[in-house]
Amino acid sequence: MVFIGFGFLMTYLKKYGYSSLGFNFLLAALTLQWSMICEGFFELNDDYKIAIGLDSLFKADIATAAVLISMGAVLGRTSHIQLVVMSILEIFTYCLNNALNNHYFKAVDAGGSVTVHTFGAYFGLSASYVLQKRTKAESIESYHLDEASYASNIYAMIGSIFLWVYWPSFNSIHLEDDRAHMAIINTYLSLTSCCVSTFIVSQLNSKQHKFNMIHIQNSTLAGGVAVGACAHLMIQPFGAVLLGAITGAISVYGYTTLSNTLQSYRVLDTCGINNLHGIPGILGGLVSVLIASLANEEQYGKSLYKIYPARVNPNTSWSPQYIFPEVGSGRSAQQQAGYQALLLFVTVLLAVISGIISGAIISWEMWGTTPSAFYYNDLEFWEMPSEQQTIKGILPIVWPVKEKLYHKKSNSNLFNVAT
Amino acid sequence: MVFIGFGFLMTYLKKYGYSSLGFNFLLAALTLQWSMICEGFFELNDDYKIAIGLDSLFKADIATAAVLISMGAVLGRTSHIQLVVMSILEIFTYCLNNALNNHYFKAVDAGGSVTVHTFGAYFGLSASYVLQKRTKAESIESYHLDEASYASNIYAMIGSIFLWVYWPSFNSIHLEDDRAHMAIINTYLSLTSCCVSTFIVSQLNSKQHKFNMIHIQNSTLAGGVAVGACAHLMIQPFGAVLLGAITGAISVYGYTTLSNTLQSYRVLDTCGINNLHGIPGILGGLVSVLIASLANEEQYGKSLYKIYPARVNPNTSWSPQYIFPEVGSGRSAQQQAGYQALLLFVTVLLAVISGIISGAIISWEMWGTTPSAFYYNDLEFWEMPSEQQTIKGILPIVWPVKEKLYHKKSNSNLFNVAT
Amino acid sequence: MVFIGFGFLMTYLKKYGYSSLGFNFLLAALTLQWSMICEGFFELNDDYKIAIGLDSLFKADIATAAVLISMGAVLGRTSHIQLVVMSILEIFTYCLNNALNNHYFKAVDAGGSVTVHTFGAYFGLSASYVLQKRTKAESIESYHLDEASYASNIYAMIGSIFLWVYWPSFNSIHLEDDRAHMAIINTYLSLTSCCVSTFIVSQLNSKQHKFNMIHIQNSTLAGGVAVGACAHLMIQPFGAVLLGAITGAISVYGYTTLSNTLQSYRVLDTCGINNLHGIPGILGGLVSVLIASLANEEQYGKSLYKIYPARVNPNTSWSPQYIFPEVGSGRSAQQQAGYQALLLFVTVLLAVISGIISGAIISWEMWGTTPSAFYYNDLEFWEMPSEQQTIKGILPIVWPVKEKLYHKKSNSNLFNVAT
Repeated sequence: MVFIGFGFLMTYLKKYGYSSLGFNFLLAALTLQWSMICEGFFELNDDYKIAIGLDSLFKADIATAAVLISMGAVLGRTSHIQLVVMSILEIFTYCLNNALNNHYFKAVDAGGSVTVHTFGAYFGLSASYVLQKRTKAESIESYHLDEASYASNIYAMIGSIFLWVYWPSFNSIHLEDDRAHMAIINTYLSLTSCCVSTFIVSQLNSKQHKFNMIHIQNSTLAGGVAVGACAHLMIQPFGAVLLGAITGAISVYGYTTLSNTLQSYRVLDTCGINNLHGIPGILGGLVSVLIASLANEEQYGKSLYKIYPARVNPNTSWSPQYIFPEVGSGRSAQQQAGYQALLLFVTVLLAVISGIISGAIISWEMWGTTPSAFYYNDLEFWEMPSEQQTIKGILPIVWPVKEKLYHKKSNSNLFNVAT
Repeated sequence: MVFIGFGFLMTYLKKYGYSSLGFNFLLAALTLQWSMICEGFFELNDDYKIAIGLDSLFKADIATAAVLISMGAVLGRTSHIQLVVMSILEIFTYCLNNALNNHYFKAVDAGGSVTVHTFGAYFGLSASYVLQKRTKAESIESYHLDEASYASNIYAMIGSIFLWVYWPSFNSIHLEDDRAHMAIINTYLSLTSCCVSTFIVSQLNSKQHKFNMIHIQNSTLAGGVAVGACAHLMIQPFGAVLLGAITGAISVYGYTTLSNTLQSYRVLDTCGINNLHGIPGILGGLVSVLIASLANEEQYGKSLYKIYPARVNPNTSWSPQYIFPEVGSGRSAQQQAGYQALLLFVTVLLAVISGIISGAIISWEMWGTTPSAFYYNDLEFWEMPSEQQTIKGILPIVWPVKEKLYHKKSNSNLFNVAT
Repeated sequence: MVFIGFGFLMTYLKKYGYSSLGFNFLLAALTLQWSMICEGFFELNDDYKIAIGLDSLFKADIATAAVLISMGAVLGRTSHIQLVVMSILEIFTYCLNNALNNHYFKAVDAGGSVTVHTFGAYFGLSASYVLQKRTKAESIESYHLDEASYASNIYAMIGSIFLWVYWPSFNSIHLEDDRAHMAIINTYLSLTSCCVSTFIVSQLNSKQHKFNMIHIQNSTLAGGVAVGACAHLMIQPFGAVLLGAITGAISVYGYTTLSNTLQSYRVLDTCGINNLHGIPGILGGLVSVLIASLANEEQYGKSLYKIYPARVNPNTSWSPQYIFPEVGSGRSAQQQAGYQALLLFVTVLLAVISGIISGAIISWEMWGTTPSAFYYNDLEFWEMPSEQQTIKGILPIVWPVKEKLYHKKSNSNLFNVAT
């Protein structure tokens, strides 16, 4: 059932046509295989083989999400080769971070707010920054191609609604029974309130009090990101609704002001992943620290030890079926909260460091670089339908640059034909 | 799993671009929350708290369907504020109607033919009528914007096929085991025969014997609406096929003739909800009356009392696990059929009354009204991509009105540039 | 849950707009009903009635896939009447072939590589050949309409990704537990490696080293077809990955060269079903022969007899619950492999013969034939949105022919208006 969520992750960037869809598809297929190997590498079984089961597929799906998030930062300014190299490097660090958490921090992050969204976002932003600096793309003029058309906004909306609908499943795939139900309900509440808050703030933020499609497509999902780390915990319906509303507002604010600030520091962010994944992910991480510091046996009963296995006292004698004393180290609530904070800190650190390294590597000339005149332009990588009679009417803003070249040669511009 | 069906309800009105998608999204998110509170209000538990579980989410999903149906009648002629007010009022009456049925009528309507589709349709039509009358939109000229384009018909078709595919799950979510299987099979049969009948009647109804996309998008679904109320009962495969075929034919007939008749009485119906939900819903309600009057223990065995719990004689001593004598009142088949009819009657009555009241309320000037020159026009509410170089080529029929204004000022019409 | 996979089969041919979507929808709805009757006819129960259950729906879904595959070969050159006649004939032979396998060959083909994909492909190609020969479509000039536009390639990509995501479920619906898990994992691995291989070979095959959307849409799925027949067997992760990679490469090669060769022999293949279903299906069939000849009790344990029920020795005394000695005939591995090969041979034979007959029948004049000037043209069958002001800007290559006619009459060509 969970294969569902993943397909739509691939379609969520339909704004730039063939390349967005195609490169998403390629990266997803590659990452699914590579992440199975990497995850397996850190969890080798006794005879040094990698065990593959349905569970591996779910984990690989989620790892793919991290790569597709990072791709959102550099999309349109990288070739498929650069993206492939980037994702190979990213998955390795992603799995390393996960292994650190599984073996040492034992922090709880069921929906991947920290390990998937925060990691993917800050890896992508760091890589984007270094890439931009290295390739010294002077002509900033072509950047206006980084825009949507009426039709492409509608495609993106399809992707957005799919993600929104499947998010509750995404946040609950690693969970069972009661925890899964709670994760579904909390994610659902957070998403709905986030959606309403996005609409309100989007309208308030606009001079003419109009809605902006970019906010509706992206910020409506931020509530799902933020609630991820503690969707299965007792945050109360009210908590989920509040968290969603705050995240939606922050995310819209991010799109309207923060993105420009970042851009002025030359941190380009094509899809605004900082606003959809970065900040909501950190917010989710902080909430998980808070919740961990408050969790106690009174509130959760014995299921506390199922949620936070590291809090089991290994010396206690009672042991219900689901409690594995050997994994416990008798942590207090404060200690658990500390480890939650440590996971957040280490994730951001690892993401930034490995993002910088990856950004440097993919800016090597050996991979070939896209001249900035061809940024956000499908023509560079794709055979266009019936090249000469191509449908310039539909996405004129996507290839004006090459169109000009053609124009000089053939004077076949569709709209000039009439003259 | 059932979250699936709901996402596509939101995409099924893609004809009018940003507003259809966006307002659907906003209303759905809002209604999901509000309907949980309203439903909870009528089913308060002992300590006056509202219990929230997965079941609440399913119920809220279905309530959302009713609101989105009503929205189909007034879409394009209302602002988001008016729609929000309307849906808040509608959900309250919707929950009241459901509570009446659960506590008093105890009529059976598993797929919501009556309580969802009929209610939503007649609420929306009444509201549309009053709204139209009150706002005195004299200039009828702009109504030609209420049309599809080649591309928008394809988007709508995606939504339509999704709904078609998920309808069997929609009609069976409240059911278990055998009943769920039977509901899936009957809905499936009804939908397939409805689809075939729609194609045939659509071609026969056209002067040039061509198909009409509006029929294919909508009437193919009518079979699922009609079969809803008795999908889990013994209507026989033949019965389901026949019901689907008849409903499809009636629905196409509705689009070709009835809609014009209604429009001449100033009952505007943007998406033809009367033909897709209203009439098929009433038909489904009538069939459920018929089936209830025929149901007996010979045919169903003891499961009769599971299907119609009100028919259990509270004084009988045998009690299999699934029979709750305390809810029974020993109704005869005729009595049950009477209550089924009562539900249908009360639903239509409540829908019309509350629709009229809501229509009056949303036509108050305090909500702001859309001038009829901007009906069916995204420009009123949405920031357009790169305003000046907007893709007029794609949806020219969507904004001719404002285009004319622009034209006078800037003379920048894309197609005139060449002259 | 499996209803999911089927809906997207209907959307996968969105390239030709209304007709692709509409006729797919009509054929699917019709075939679902007709195949239930046909399948039932070959599996009548004791009192000569047809039993309908959820299982019948799954089987009907799969039969529908075969029809939609065949439709891919003749799409754009046939009317809906011809398609309906063709699918009625096809389903009968399809069910005959299945019944032969169930009762006599007892060959294993869980994902339908042979019985669905190979059958559908060669039926369609044969019908297409005969139809082309009979209708003597001389004017080949209009065939350039058989092309994609920028937007239609994006619609098709949505369909393609859906199919890709649901393929693992499709290959595992008839299976249980361990077998289903293995089928999911193997299909998944094969699809991912097929996707990567498609991208590589597509780029290598292009003169300018660009990707081609047609390959990305279709060949990425070929791995799922090829692995179908033995997805639930012990082909090892490595085997699945290898099979996927080879199939992807062959499929791209088919699109770039083989299709032209076939076309020069007047075997037209609109959607390239030979490359997506035909060759990968045969490859899958051959692999299933190989695997059957290698399968032994050491490798599979007792579950061997669950997978290949015909290999059970009817005289053995041990009988675990899932073993039905009465269906067994004590075949050796070689015998089973022989029957697998026989199924492949008989399937191709039956498909070609019945395809030729169907092609001859649908080329009768009584069904009406589409003049070749209107091939690949929605105008012939569909009412267009607001005929005169139709959106010529979007899909100009779809109706240049009729446009020319209009042009002479009204001189209202959108782009000439400016002059």
